[in-house]
Amino acid sequence: MKENAVLNFLRQRKTVYISGEEISKRLEVSRSAVWKEMQALRRLGYEIEAQPHLGYRLLAIPDKLFADELMAELGTKLIGKEIYSYEELDSTNDAAFRLGEKGAKEGLCVFAEYQKKGRGRLGRSWVSPKGKNIILSVLLRPVFLPHEISKLTLACAVSVIKTIRKTTGKTLGIKWPNDIYYENKKVGGILTEMSAESDRINFIVVGLGINLNAACDELPEGSTSLKEITGCGIDRVGFGRELLRRLEIDYTRLKNDSFEALEKDWETFSVTSGQRVVARLFGRKIEGQALGIDKDGALWIRQDNGFQERIMAGDVEHLWSKK
Amino acid sequence: MKENAVLNFLRQRKTVYISGEEISKRLEVSRSAVWKEMQALRRLGYEIEAQPHLGYRLLAIPDKLFADELMAELGTKLIGKEIYSYEELDSTNDAAFRLGEKGAKEGLCVFAEYQKKGRGRLGRSWVSPKGKNIILSVLLRPVFLPHEISKLTLACAVSVIKTIRKTTGKTLGIKWPNDIYYENKKVGGILTEMSAESDRINFIVVGLGINLNAACDELPEGSTSLKEITGCGIDRVGFGRELLRRLEIDYTRLKNDSFEALEKDWETFSVTSGQRVVARLFGRKIEGQALGIDKDGALWIRQDNGFQERIMAGDVEHLWSKK
Repeated sequence: MKENAVLNFLRQRKTVYISGEEISKRLEVSRSAVWKEMQALRRLGYEIEAQPHLGYRLLAIPDKLFADELMAELGTKLIGKEIYSYEELDSTNDAAFRLGEKGAKEGLCVFAEYQKKGRGRLGRSWVSPKGKNIILSVLLRPVFLPHEISKLTLACAVSVIKTIRKTTGKTLGIKWPNDIYYENKKVGGILTEMSAESDRINFIVVGLGINLNAACDELPEGSTSLKEITGCGIDRVGFGRELLRRLEIDYTRLKNDSFEALEKDWETFSVTSGQRVVARLFGRKIEGQALGIDKDGALWIRQDNGFQERIMAGDVEHLWSKK
Repeated sequence: MKENAVLNFLRQRKTVYISGEEISKRLEVSRSAVWKEMQALRRLGYEIEAQPHLGYRLLAIPDKLFADELMAELGTKLIGKEIYSYEELDSTNDAAFRLGEKGAKEGLCVFAEYQKKGRGRLGRSWVSPKGKNIILSVLLRPVFLPHEISKLTLACAVSVIKTIRKTTGKTLGIKWPNDIYYENKKVGGILTEMSAESDRINFIVVGLGINLNAACDELPEGSTSLKEITGCGIDRVGFGRELLRRLEIDYTRLKNDSFEALEKDWETFSVTSGQRVVARLFGRKIEGQALGIDKDGALWIRQDNGFQERIMAGDVEHLWSKK
């Protein structure tokens, strides 16, 4: 019996019952093999109704980011053609990086329910309670120069915003360069890492952490989740699929040389542009009004003395209170 | 007995004999332990003279890039404070990259006598016969932005030229961006790789392959070695030490913000500037006269229609014959 063959029958039928006899005939396996598979699926968390004389019916899928579940009905051509899912990992970025080093194909995704050593930008940690949110790393192999990686990060931030808007109706904001915010509170972050030569990217790993169903008290201070914002629990598998589809769309736009369009999207969602900010980089501190990004993804800041600075790296703090 | 304690006595004495009795007393070990150590050193290739009534004397060290031998009398503060040497490896860059991922310190060096999967720029292979040349990877952790990696590559090319000049008296040339040439023939290459975030370098691995003592027929077509050029065999350990010292000097210059000085050095040694070249990148082909590099390390080419192009990546072929 092929992996997930029984599950696929249940999926196809949706609301209609399918008898154990029919499954056993069509898969050419014994009735007892079908029954064993139903038990195995139930242990994984699938809710399967069994009605005498009617048969089986799939009531609910588990709240788990199973690779197979994410890939069902995904419909992408690149992102998510190969998915690895883990209950627990040190870091999905590290796992995807190692797969990249071994030559894994572009579009590969690594999901985890929990990271023991989750990392954020600039060597910080990324904290996310088990089984509540989305932790995902995507392997990409664009023909970019190393300095173009910033554009990819900005594109992915746009994908996250659009996925959230489609699944919840809420439009969140991007804090430069790629943090996802809702009213001064962090909902998601992106950590883009690469292996590169001087003038050639070997591969990029984009790590995305998005708070879906975690309660505020499970998250670091200053963070919130989509469930807290909307008051509704989020279907994590559905969100995950939509995210992969959207990443494929925006990555394709970027590769086809339309960073201009993405730049406009980014500016639309930016909560940094127009804000009073303090940027810290390499020991320097620059305070002023954020103006927006340029075609390289750098942030421009107008200082109080009128002088404008271009920020390619480092940390930007919003002086929200002074707005 | 401490590792290399006996060898260190022999090194200190140089031309003067040291008796087995004296060594055994000073190290507080038995005469037979001293004798065994002499045998072990001889098996490694050390030539040790033993004269009755006089004692032992070190005549010659083996032609091997032993970590301990390289570190003796090295005198650097950073580059080569930790050295790993291998008879055979897949790739020194891969080995140094893995050590970098595990948090190894800046300055770590990996030498190999032979690489099974030696790599060059742009996914090409690097071929070097066993035990004849220098194959070295250095781990660095500069506080650079990812796009500044090009400067480091150029700086290392300058270090190689200066090391060759000091050890052989010959001034070789740099073909953009970082190949080492002597009269149209390749003598060395540099492969710089990094692990980085969008706006922060985690670490850089600089891989250097330099043909020292290989014969032309052991090398790929179009290559030569310092032995072929000078007619003399090169002391590989001495060359290796000098290279590490020079890398430390130029890396320090670069970190102290003096790329301008390095840029001048680079231009002095450049055999590309002024040449008629064809550059190929991302499927495009640009032919014209190479003008020189700018402050980012990019090469400028003046095409025949007068239009000037800036090349950050790709391959440059010298049309030597047309010079």
